Amino acid sequence: MGASSEALTQVLIPVAALVGIGFALLQWLLVSRVKVSSHDSSNGYKVKLIEADEEEEDIDNFEVSIKCAEIQHAISLGATSFLFTEYKYLGIFMGVFGVIIFLFLGSVKGFSTKSEPCTYNQGNTCKPALANAVFSTIAFLLGALTSVISGFLGMKIATYANARTTLEARKGVGKAFIIAFRSGAVMGFLLAANGLLVLHVSIYLFKLYYGDDWEGLYESITGYGLGGSSMALFGRVGGGIYTKAADVSADLVGKVERNIPEDDPRNPAVIADNVGDNVGDIAGMGSDLFGSYAESSCAALFVASISSFGINHDFTAMSYPLIISSMGIVVCLITTLFATDMFEIKNVREVEPSLKRQLLISTILMTAGIAMVSFFALPSEFTLFDFGTEKEVKNWHLFFCVSIGLWAGLVIGYITEYYTSNAYSPVQDVADSCRTGAATNVIFGLALGYKSVIIPIFAISISIYVSFSLAAMYGIAVAALGMLSTISTGLAIDAYGPISDNAGGIAEMAGMSHKIRERTDALDAAGNTTAAIGKGFAIGSAALVSLALFGAYVSRAGIKSVDVLTPKVFIGLIVGAMLPYWFSAMTMKSVGSAALKMVEEVRRQFNSIPGIMEGMVKPDYANCVKISTDASLREMIPPGALVMLSPLIVGTFLGVETLAGVLVGSLVSGVQVAISASNTGGAWDNAKKYIEAGVSEHAKSLGPKGSDCHKAAVIGDTIGDPLKDTSGPSLNILIKLMAVESLVFAPFFAAHGGLLFKFI
Amino acid sequence: MGASSEALTQVLIPVAALVGIGFALLQWLLVSRVKVSSHDSSNGYKVKLIEADEEEEDIDNFEVSIKCAEIQHAISLGATSFLFTEYKYLGIFMGVFGVIIFLFLGSVKGFSTKSEPCTYNQGNTCKPALANAVFSTIAFLLGALTSVISGFLGMKIATYANARTTLEARKGVGKAFIIAFRSGAVMGFLLAANGLLVLHVSIYLFKLYYGDDWEGLYESITGYGLGGSSMALFGRVGGGIYTKAADVSADLVGKVERNIPEDDPRNPAVIADNVGDNVGDIAGMGSDLFGSYAESSCAALFVASISSFGINHDFTAMSYPLIISSMGIVVCLITTLFATDMFEIKNVREVEPSLKRQLLISTILMTAGIAMVSFFALPSEFTLFDFGTEKEVKNWHLFFCVSIGLWAGLVIGYITEYYTSNAYSPVQDVADSCRTGAATNVIFGLALGYKSVIIPIFAISISIYVSFSLAAMYGIAVAALGMLSTISTGLAIDAYGPISDNAGGIAEMAGMSHKIRERTDALDAAGNTTAAIGKGFAIGSAALVSLALFGAYVSRAGIKSVDVLTPKVFIGLIVGAMLPYWFSAMTMKSVGSAALKMVEEVRRQFNSIPGIMEGMVKPDYANCVKISTDASLREMIPPGALVMLSPLIVGTFLGVETLAGVLVGSLVSGVQVAISASNTGGAWDNAKKYIEAGVSEHAKSLGPKGSDCHKAAVIGDTIGDPLKDTSGPSLNILIKLMAVESLVFAPFFAAHGGLLFKFI
Repeated sequence: MGASSEALTQVLIPVAALVGIGFALLQWLLVSRVKVSSHDSSNGYKVKLIEADEEEEDIDNFEVSIKCAEIQHAISLGATSFLFTEYKYLGIFMGVFGVIIFLFLGSVKGFSTKSEPCTYNQGNTCKPALANAVFSTIAFLLGALTSVISGFLGMKIATYANARTTLEARKGVGKAFIIAFRSGAVMGFLLAANGLLVLHVSIYLFKLYYGDDWEGLYESITGYGLGGSSMALFGRVGGGIYTKAADVSADLVGKVERNIPEDDPRNPAVIADNVGDNVGDIAGMGSDLFGSYAESSCAALFVASISSFGINHDFTAMSYPLIISSMGIVVCLITTLFATDMFEIKNVREVEPSLKRQLLISTILMTAGIAMVSFFALPSEFTLFDFGTEKEVKNWHLFFCVSIGLWAGLVIGYITEYYTSNAYSPVQDVADSCRTGAATNVIFGLALGYKSVIIPIFAISISIYVSFSLAAMYGIAVAALGMLSTISTGLAIDAYGPISDNAGGIAEMAGMSHKIRERTDALDAAGNTTAAIGKGFAIGSAALVSLALFGAYVSRAGIKSVDVLTPKVFIGLIVGAMLPYWFSAMTMKSVGSAALKMVEEVRRQFNSIPGIMEGMVKPDYANCVKISTDASLREMIPPGALVMLSPLIVGTFLGVETLAGVLVGSLVSGVQVAISASNTGGAWDNAKKYIEAGVSEHAKSLGPKGSDCHKAAVIGDTIGDPLKDTSGPSLNILIKLMAVESLVFAPFFAAHGGLLFKFI
Repeated sequence: MGASSEALTQVLIPVAALVGIGFALLQWLLVSRVKVSSHDSSNGYKVKLIEADEEEEDIDNFEVSIKCAEIQHAISLGATSFLFTEYKYLGIFMGVFGVIIFLFLGSVKGFSTKSEPCTYNQGNTCKPALANAVFSTIAFLLGALTSVISGFLGMKIATYANARTTLEARKGVGKAFIIAFRSGAVMGFLLAANGLLVLHVSIYLFKLYYGDDWEGLYESITGYGLGGSSMALFGRVGGGIYTKAADVSADLVGKVERNIPEDDPRNPAVIADNVGDNVGDIAGMGSDLFGSYAESSCAALFVASISSFGINHDFTAMSYPLIISSMGIVVCLITTLFATDMFEIKNVREVEPSLKRQLLISTILMTAGIAMVSFFALPSEFTLFDFGTEKEVKNWHLFFCVSIGLWAGLVIGYITEYYTSNAYSPVQDVADSCRTGAATNVIFGLALGYKSVIIPIFAISISIYVSFSLAAMYGIAVAALGMLSTISTGLAIDAYGPISDNAGGIAEMAGMSHKIRERTDALDAAGNTTAAIGKGFAIGSAALVSLALFGAYVSRAGIKSVDVLTPKVFIGLIVGAMLPYWFSAMTMKSVGSAALKMVEEVRRQFNSIPGIMEGMVKPDYANCVKISTDASLREMIPPGALVMLSPLIVGTFLGVETLAGVLVGSLVSGVQVAISASNTGGAWDNAKKYIEAGVSEHAKSLGPKGSDCHKAAVIGDTIGDPLKDTSGPSLNILIKLMAVESLVFAPFFAAHGGLLFKFI
């Protein structure tokens, strides 16, 4: 059975990946059917707009369409040029860090090219440490490249879809929803499939050299995760600073000082704001979740390679993590059809339930999928590595591990929705507290964020306990994969948010009617919630992934126990728990300073360019784009350095035990900060939207736009911006990245680390 | 030498305590020389007010003095009646919890009255477990009582001193400073001396029963720490909600809506606000630091009792923690003279440096004191218990342990000052960010708080590493004692803050001139900083104390290692790290809801009582006091229950390992939340004061009062209120209390805990 099942695995995984890519292209084709006129195109927008239950837009369609195309073009141009500039810097970083990896890992055995006895598979001979250094570096570069491509493609799709969503909004909220959602799906499937394919092909190619030395093979593959996550860090932080500097200052000068609406074309920062959504929320998020996916796969593969799967050379069982992801693509494909083809959104209130339903459907289907995979791909009994000892595990144990991760993700998603959607009392309470001004709004919002941590932490704890008890660290790794197995659906509903946000901006800028703006606003409000859900997934999975990586690190560094009662570990814990605060301080201050600079520029333009407020003269958008670009590229370096250097410094000077403490400390503390920050921010944003929309009696009593309550809500929203879109979501990269970096450098730290204690 | 040194120790400790009490009374006498006229007193205020460099107050002295007396009376009455009501509830709690302690500990050996073989001092016979239950309960009640007395005395002194400070402010800022500082010293010395005396006497009395069974003796003494801290928790939370509900609502309606100054007598919530300062900041803080002191002493004594000190029955060495505290009283006494008699404050700018100097002087003197005590009280070599093994320690090792704690406290104090005083750039930057409104103010303030965590955490880590390496858990415990050894000075400069705050309130309410208010404001601004320093000390020492208690808990529960790699421990860690968030969510929401209620009442009074805004009719202060009282008593129960029940539930159902994880998790995460919350709040408060005072060109460009910048600063200040005075400072009690409670209940958990895992 071995050989035939191996051949089947070798075929099925790439087939699933190709199906995913094909499906993404199909969705893209469907989105592209909506035509956006541009100057050189003779095919105007000609679809009849009249529908039975909708009023006709009485503005000239062709003119609007051209305006939309112009704006879309400006946004796309801004985003592309920012990403290219960012990637130039990241290219240098990749080169430098690649060299560091090679030198550090190469030096472990003095750059020796001699084969070594294996560490775990005793008696056998493994490839030299130098090979490990070379292949880890290659894997790092591959991971970095895939991450960059994931982010870039996501941005391209989003900037392609935003104006199309706006135009479709004229036909009704349902049509617009479908376009935004399909575009999100393009990104989700491309990313998941692409990640899987590159990983699979890399393993295949690495195997040509490594042959039977699976230990070395899967050790060097961990570089893939490191590459993915380090790009994600800079993407998230840089993009986050970019988008929020623009957003905060546009709000401060536009909404508060000049009393013009959000996304008003007279606001000089408005293009930068919309560009930001694409480079921060889309490209950043794409890289982030790709990183999580790559890391949990690598962690699972590494642990498996030193267990009976690896030692017995059972390739199919070994590929279990990849097969789970393949199954995930198929399941998400079916799930997507429920949203796009089986149900139709008829009014605004159906948007959120429909997105929620996506989560539920994918989770239920995936549970069945996991069962199939677990029973077909795994032997019924096997042993897993458990920190020096072996653990007897059955295939249905792994089914439970993956499933509990999957369902914990659903719980986190639902809880996040409860705390950030304006359909429930928490956000309504926050909105209500605006009656007494911004201060109570902030107090209630912070309290909401803190409270929203409770249930996700219990969900994560239970998954950890169950999966660890059943299958040690491998259990944790596959639980993380379980949570990420529906990543295509998760990303689709997540990316849908910023696309709708952009669509609203374009509607406003193109001067479309109030009705259209209301529709895109409704889509956007649901988008805030789904963005928060996406962040919830990202954080929850990051917690599991980091723990799995931590376990792999401990194994690779040869640590027998991480005892809190030793001072080395304890100081690591408390300093690690501090790092998320340090990091948040940097990123929040960066957003603040960049926003202040932008505010000055926007004020300068309003004051010095005559006719700008009357809409006679176009503001100088480009200058604002430049300020955001410069600020974000400059400001992303210190927090990036903090994250990248901390493990290197701690490992080199304080040794592997202290580093273990730092990893655990930053994990247990960072998760809380990240969840509370993104939910607080999401809640403030939607509390503001709740007041603006004025759907219920209660909401009406707080509004309308421009009332004191609304002003207080805008302040909360502005504070929440850097929390939810810069520091919060970057934190989950912090905890994952430090763990995977420690894992990659573990042999070096184990051999040469702890210099400080050696001297004392 | 043994017997004579024992006799000397038995005498010296109570003598030091009595000296401290005597000194406190002397300071009180000096404060009482300032006469506040009351209706029935014929001795008016007759001291000549004219000084060479000060202008004379041109208002009628006698009338002002009577007004001050009235206000003081109202504040004192409100505070006393609140505390009595609170203590009634706490009395019930003490009774119930006393029974729980007795039943849980009694059940360990089935209420057997048979003597047992000792755990550590093998071969000997120890007292029965039932005796442990009885004496732990007694110690708990004693600790609770002492804590209550500490808080109450502090409040009495503060309400006695506030009006006297106001009256002295007419003579100049220096005189007012001395009064406020002396009153703080009364509290500081009474509390430290009282705590020491009760502990010493209790040990003496317990020894009458326990005789040679020092293990049992010092085990049951740990109940003293539990009693102290559990009262402190309710005091802090209840008082914190009380003060901030009043403060927030007074600001919201008075300053923001009605545009009347702070502490304006027309504001119905103004008395409640001033009462709050006394019950929250003073009584709460007093109980808190007393708790820290009691717990670190208990932790040190417990660890010592199972080390060679206890086993060899070396009473003097055993009493080392108490001798350190005795020395601390003497050192602080000398230090106080520097502030009150050796230097004179001539202008406002000297206030803060003078308080800072107090910290430095006491630290330097205490270092010498520690050296003396370490060389005289300790044998030159001895062994300490180190989780099952023994550790050889020299007396100068302990000197380093205590000193590093002491100096780490100084570093934390200075860093806190840097981040919260408006003399330095961090607060000035926050003030500057108010130019662009409340949102940037909040973003910068949060970033400042996060950043302010970095150095304190490094200071704590280094102390932990050094003291742990030198003397295991005993080292940590005495390092905590070192940080707290100058508690009298620390409390003096801390209590000085709320007293000055009250003095300013009384000046405003009594209608005293702008000049007087300016002086009290300057004292108050320095007070904000010292309050933040006090909180820094409280948090820093809490971290060390909890770690020491954690070590004692681990020993007592018989745990061999707390390995993060076991799922039981890890889920404890992550859930523990979540608890500070849960707790903060509760307390912040409580303040918010109570403030909303109060806002309604204040608005109602403004709208329905005619003549109130014209100052013709007195508002109904009593109703506001009642709302604050009811709200705080009701709202303190859920967070209190969370803290008190978590260890019991986790220990009983999940067992000692998970509980160990919870303790460490809440420690490493809670410290960060607590430090950042109190520094953010302090910085906002002083950023506002910076704009109001308008001393520099920069400050003037942001002001004056009522400008847009100032309004933004007021919003920040209001948000900071619950952060710095409710949730932040309560968190250090959370981490200590959970640790000491676990320590007291450890035998029960070890014998009967972990029910859930037993059933699975």
